[in-house]
Amino acid sequence: MLTFRIVLVEPEHPHNVGFVARAMHCNAISELYIVYPKRDAVNPESYRTAHNSSEILDGAKVVHSLDEALSTAHYAFAFSRRRFDTIIPHTSLPHITEFLPKDGTIALVFGRESCGLSLEEIERCAMICEIPVPGQMSLNLAQAVTAACYELCRSGLLNNPGLRTDRVPLKRGRIEKANIGQIENFLSYLHGHLTDRYQNNTWTESAVREFLQRLEPTRFEMSALLGLVKSLVMRGKEEARHVEKGGQ
Amino acid sequence: MLTFRIVLVEPEHPHNVGFVARAMHCNAISELYIVYPKRDAVNPESYRTAHNSSEILDGAKVVHSLDEALSTAHYAFAFSRRRFDTIIPHTSLPHITEFLPKDGTIALVFGRESCGLSLEEIERCAMICEIPVPGQMSLNLAQAVTAACYELCRSGLLNNPGLRTDRVPLKRGRIEKANIGQIENFLSYLHGHLTDRYQNNTWTESAVREFLQRLEPTRFEMSALLGLVKSLVMRGKEEARHVEKGGQ
Repeated sequence: MLTFRIVLVEPEHPHNVGFVARAMHCNAISELYIVYPKRDAVNPESYRTAHNSSEILDGAKVVHSLDEALSTAHYAFAFSRRRFDTIIPHTSLPHITEFLPKDGTIALVFGRESCGLSLEEIERCAMICEIPVPGQMSLNLAQAVTAACYELCRSGLLNNPGLRTDRVPLKRGRIEKANIGQIENFLSYLHGHLTDRYQNNTWTESAVREFLQRLEPTRFEMSALLGLVKSLVMRGKEEARHVEKGGQ
Repeated sequence: MLTFRIVLVEPEHPHNVGFVARAMHCNAISELYIVYPKRDAVNPESYRTAHNSSEILDGAKVVHSLDEALSTAHYAFAFSRRRFDTIIPHTSLPHITEFLPKDGTIALVFGRESCGLSLEEIERCAMICEIPVPGQMSLNLAQAVTAACYELCRSGLLNNPGLRTDRVPLKRGRIEKANIGQIENFLSYLHGHLTDRYQNNTWTESAVREFLQRLEPTRFEMSALLGLVKSLVMRGKEEARHVEKGGQ
């Protein structure tokens, strides 16, 4: 079994540590290590942004060196976008799962907000992992942790799939695509109830046929459309009857 | 071509709007709409957390209703984890790309920090999208936007792949796995330079063989290991010579 540990190296802004705790809590990751060379405890300010995730901060291990944070883990990824002259192999977050061992504790190491991880720190890890950012600017620390957790979650590596189980499953007709038969059935009803002017306009029918096939509607949607059209016809008839009665 | 628009419906904390701008900037997404029923401009407080992304806030369109924010888009996803009794179909973020049209402007709609989107707001959209969170707690607003942008980026839907192009490509030997021949070559050198006691211990050789095959080392790593072993042997010889000379 794989477990994950978030390691923050000298985070500079305590509110970011709180946001990291929240992202971890959301993703059911609980092991937080913070490397603070000169502190022995979590900064109380961090609790302000932790939002229901204070347990993560309560359980966080504050250590004085990266080595202490890694010694009980089995494999470490250094998160960095900087370019280093090192033999440490490099991957990007969408590919991280290809490099994960089958089990053990995986440390995901994140650096300082201002300057990231040093080369020396990176070389304590087995791999460098980069989070792709098309805008060529680094994510905020907690956003980087969020992206990393999301990737693990979407790869099925966290404790549960993370989806609510109280969703009502969609009925079959809501998913199953309407076939051409159902579309033609609709077109036939539609055609049979148009005014002469529209019935003689073959362009309309072809256009609607093309439009419906392109839409790829579900069976449910086609039934709903047929219902709408029938309702229009019915209302027309009702109004006609009403006028007739009024005229008597 | 697809373009993406982030729509925030009545965000309550201005610092979250700044963090959202940063996540957007990182992912090269620039269209931000904010639905503020009673405001006409971005809250100046939001600039404090935008970190180099003030252009996104400068260009943000503040509107008074969700309809205004959606009218020029083509397809809208409502981000929500709440359970609604609605026929709006539901997906989860890892599957969002399966439901994207081929082109147009896609609105990603996020609700209030405290209570998300209302049913009425959700029903202005084509689909509900849920971000899987194993911890059963919602991400912070900007973290949710970060996860959504990351998913689009990893699916190749943003302007560029987001990876730095200045990485030195790994040399072939650094990627290519060592074959058994190379491993046996190493074992043979090792065996030939062990003391008698270790040479006669067949367990050691088998254990090292098994261990190396399991490691799946690259060619580069096997060369490095061989170099290390040779260096140990050399150093031993040097010291022996030194002792001998000293002994003369």
